[in-house]
Amino acid sequence: MPKAFPQKSKGYHPFAELIGLDFSRVEQGTSQCVLSVKAELLNPQRVLHGAVLYAMADTGMGGALYSVLDDDELCATLEIKMMYFQPMRSGELVCDTKILRRSKHFAMLESTITQNQQQAAQATGTFAIWQTNARTE
Amino acid sequence: MPKAFPQKSKGYHPFAELIGLDFSRVEQGTSQCVLSVKAELLNPQRVLHGAVLYAMADTGMGGALYSVLDDDELCATLEIKMMYFQPMRSGELVCDTKILRRSKHFAMLESTITQNQQQAAQATGTFAIWQTNARTE
Amino acid sequence: MPKAFPQKSKGYHPFAELIGLDFSRVEQGTSQCVLSVKAELLNPQRVLHGAVLYAMADTGMGGALYSVLDDDELCATLEIKMMYFQPMRSGELVCDTKILRRSKHFAMLESTITQNQQQAAQATGTFAIWQTNARTE
Amino acid sequence: MPKAFPQKSKGYHPFAELIGLDFSRVEQGTSQCVLSVKAELLNPQRVLHGAVLYAMADTGMGGALYSVLDDDELCATLEIKMMYFQPMRSGELVCDTKILRRSKHFAMLESTITQNQQQAAQATGTFAIWQTNARTE
Repeated sequence: MPKAFPQKSKGYHPFAELIGLDFSRVEQGTSQCVLSVKAELLNPQRVLHGAVLYAMADTGMGGALYSVLDDDELCATLEIKMMYFQPMRSGELVCDTKILRRSKHFAMLESTITQNQQQAAQATGTFAIWQTNARTE
Repeated sequence: MPKAFPQKSKGYHPFAELIGLDFSRVEQGTSQCVLSVKAELLNPQRVLHGAVLYAMADTGMGGALYSVLDDDELCATLEIKMMYFQPMRSGELVCDTKILRRSKHFAMLESTITQNQQQAAQATGTFAIWQTNARTE
Repeated sequence: MPKAFPQKSKGYHPFAELIGLDFSRVEQGTSQCVLSVKAELLNPQRVLHGAVLYAMADTGMGGALYSVLDDDELCATLEIKMMYFQPMRSGELVCDTKILRRSKHFAMLESTITQNQQQAAQATGTFAIWQTNARTE
Repeated sequence: MPKAFPQKSKGYHPFAELIGLDFSRVEQGTSQCVLSVKAELLNPQRVLHGAVLYAMADTGMGGALYSVLDDDELCATLEIKMMYFQPMRSGELVCDTKILRRSKHFAMLESTITQNQQQAAQATGTFAIWQTNARTE
């Protein structure tokens, strides 16, 4: 059976489509996703809304983690801390994610968002992992 | 001069409009914003994307804080930790925000997101505050 | 068989003893622990070291969670975010902890530290839970 | 006038002394501090109490930040998120800290705690900075 996420994501990920978020790479516990700043993603100060950067990190963490899960495993975000280093007003953003720690029932991940190699934001998160058969979560 | 946020927000907040986020109340350091789960806000597992709940908290914190800022003050998110308690698939969400601590140059806030009085998520964040004349930030 | 934590804690908790941390209550998923500010707990600015407030939250969360675990379950801190509202220089501190969310393999908790009913600090954390037989963590 | 922290710290840091925490390096916005696991720092499960690792991060962040502050500037922790990767039972721990972002009134820092090059814990924090003359905080 095909792995849930990357495939589903390609075929059906409404919110990623809404904000224009795409994966450029998902492999072996890492992921890279990209997004272009667009007018409809701005806040009242004409700066990219922080939730869009957060969406890159959260989605990037899900992608990185699904790449190492078994076919009968699912995951969900428990918590993410998002930190902002500078306001983004235009251009392309790249979000690189890696796993910091992996156990049977949870994982901790880190995402770094950059623009032209300059760090714009950073996030760390904890995900729950469960077996779809076992109903353990 | 009118205060920047609530007015600007009513007239111009593209991302809030994109996801259907509205303020129902902004006063004296508190805010309440609401959002309806819609198909375009779902993730591949047909659950509301975590970034939408985050957007409620981040935007709600900005609204609550702007309500107590002077006319020449602006604010920006430094960090937010977002915690999820249960997946949301449909219906209305309400996000209530209050200030935990306020100083001249920063504030800490807390948001609680509920559906039918049940807690769906909780967030705590730190915001920077600066004077637009002073260029102190 | 007696529950692991409160008993062990009474008989053997070297670090709690070192800093003078005591539980005043542990029951049904909540806990209260207390501590007096002492000279050896100060930092160079003669303020209570932030790690002592953190110790109250972390230990309080462990106590609250153990009170609802089965005899064959153990828990450990995955992450805690600690927020400070005002510096503490002397007197008694009280840390009240409750469970925000509980699942089979993890829990999320919140601690509030007060002095004379004024809030000094607040923390939220995620704990892993595992069965000692199952070696699932 | 000499800078407050490293000097004060050498001469007077009661809590660092209590737990056996020492700086091995403080320079240009970075710091390294070290600590040996000792019996009085353990929790009931005979594992190093998480607050000791937190103390390394919090103190290390203060040291790194003070190394770039002006003589009339002070700083204090606003919030720290601490993440644990594995339990520590003995041996030496090293905590390396760097500044992620620095502004006039706040800074964000990151600490990594290792034992024999293996990562044991990681923390990110936000600090407030203020001028002792200006009473701006």
